[in-house]
Amino acid sequence: MSSNIDSFHQQLQARKEYVDGCLQKYLKQQEAYPKLIHEAMTYAVFNGGKRLRPIMVLEGARIAGGQKESVVPVACAIELIHSYSLVHDDLPSMDDDDFRRGKPTCHKVFGEAIAILAGDALLTAAFELMTKNACIEGIEPRVLLEVIGEIARAVGSRGMIGGQVIDLESEGKKIDYNTLRTLHTLKTGELFQVSLRAGALLNNIDDKGLKALTDYSYHFGLAFQITDDILDIQGNEELTGKPVGSDERNLKNTYPSLLGLDKSYKMAAESVNACLDSLALFGEEANFLRSLASYLLHRSG
Amino acid sequence: MSSNIDSFHQQLQARKEYVDGCLQKYLKQQEAYPKLIHEAMTYAVFNGGKRLRPIMVLEGARIAGGQKESVVPVACAIELIHSYSLVHDDLPSMDDDDFRRGKPTCHKVFGEAIAILAGDALLTAAFELMTKNACIEGIEPRVLLEVIGEIARAVGSRGMIGGQVIDLESEGKKIDYNTLRTLHTLKTGELFQVSLRAGALLNNIDDKGLKALTDYSYHFGLAFQITDDILDIQGNEELTGKPVGSDERNLKNTYPSLLGLDKSYKMAAESVNACLDSLALFGEEANFLRSLASYLLHRSG
Repeated sequence: MSSNIDSFHQQLQARKEYVDGCLQKYLKQQEAYPKLIHEAMTYAVFNGGKRLRPIMVLEGARIAGGQKESVVPVACAIELIHSYSLVHDDLPSMDDDDFRRGKPTCHKVFGEAIAILAGDALLTAAFELMTKNACIEGIEPRVLLEVIGEIARAVGSRGMIGGQVIDLESEGKKIDYNTLRTLHTLKTGELFQVSLRAGALLNNIDDKGLKALTDYSYHFGLAFQITDDILDIQGNEELTGKPVGSDERNLKNTYPSLLGLDKSYKMAAESVNACLDSLALFGEEANFLRSLASYLLHRSG
Repeated sequence: MSSNIDSFHQQLQARKEYVDGCLQKYLKQQEAYPKLIHEAMTYAVFNGGKRLRPIMVLEGARIAGGQKESVVPVACAIELIHSYSLVHDDLPSMDDDDFRRGKPTCHKVFGEAIAILAGDALLTAAFELMTKNACIEGIEPRVLLEVIGEIARAVGSRGMIGGQVIDLESEGKKIDYNTLRTLHTLKTGELFQVSLRAGALLNNIDDKGLKALTDYSYHFGLAFQITDDILDIQGNEELTGKPVGSDERNLKNTYPSLLGLDKSYKMAAESVNACLDSLALFGEEANFLRSLASYLLHRSG
């Protein structure tokens, strides 16, 4: 059992390093005048992230029978979008966070104006990069356009940005369970979901397989958010990189604050089980996704 | 001569109304939960703009022998991008403008956080909308992907956003002519250029025609910026919607501040002539673009 876990962590680390390498190579190409904005973009992307979303894109491709190389531009683009969303979320007028994963946030280093523009530029670069996925053999331009449209929808005003708006609107207010669920489905869930779907769609997965991955990533997003909330209460500050209890101090609505810690644990475990159930039609090729879901219950950062 | 001008103004107005109608229809479809962000997006788009950039997209299509209907999604998307850039430029940490075209700016009405998110959402919506251009008959998915990539590049860190960074970095400092020119080529010129090119490319224009339109839009962007700077000094506040002399008070580098008013006029006129020269290979179908360039020298808002 312990060697299974070790081997999963090695796989996770290898995938993270692969994504880091691709991102580094891409950002290096972008180094251009004006220097400052490209420095801020690179700072924002290399912030110690676990690269779970691009890893999802690669896994989607693999499960659909494709090569991970077939979706590298879209995978990197998804991480650029995730990075932009963190930079803007941290701004003084939003969550006003000085640190993220133990490092000063983008606006603390580069100032507010450059941080806003670096976020804008990462979002824009993501779409430029996605169009480059058309250069990879076997990728259908029409499918790529559909995938880009789906990604844009998932991170737009009816997706991730909508979730952030609900989050801002409900700070300091007590919200009900359904609102909390909608908030997180939009703010966190949709990006996980579209990541896994994108890799699979670009490699022409069949309807059954797509449905299974869609279900998996829905439950994964939920389990991720609940365990994230629990970590904020019980986590190790050095590993999570943010002060324990910051949600409570910021009067954030969380699963533990609404349901209590025990019930939150139970819900996270149920969501992970739902992840595993969703993968029933796959064989060994889905083992990494299975371990990834279970890992959420034991993660420390 | 005067009836020519009247007829041009009627054509300009008709095209503006066509674009307004398309934008209205599109934004109406987007009305969804959460309400606030969609209200802010609509407010930002319906700000009294002249819609010159989407009109350029439509003209590009027409000159290439296509129908304006063939490029409506991309044309609207370009205006969403332009609107987002204005919302973010006006923010307190950027140009800190309370009014635009006589109306309170987005962050004055909705607050800073929602204004940042509305800008993000408009940029994201633009890319979602562009992918929808694939549904129009005769549009090649591969060409559309190239156009989306070109648009993203033009408004990214090496384009429009780069120009805004140079603008911020040079406020209150005296810059040289080459830097001013680069600033405006990036901040204003690239979006005009990609607009005209996009409409033409999507309708499979030949290389010679594309080169002519590329040259035209380069000189158009320059003439637009110089006349914009002149209007800031000599304009009618009610027509321009911003206080006369705001550039000088904000210590902005402008063509008149660097070259003087007379030389600026001369340069604007030369750029307009260069616009007309670029169109030599076209016949009557380019008359609107010819009038549009000349109009810059006589515009009042």
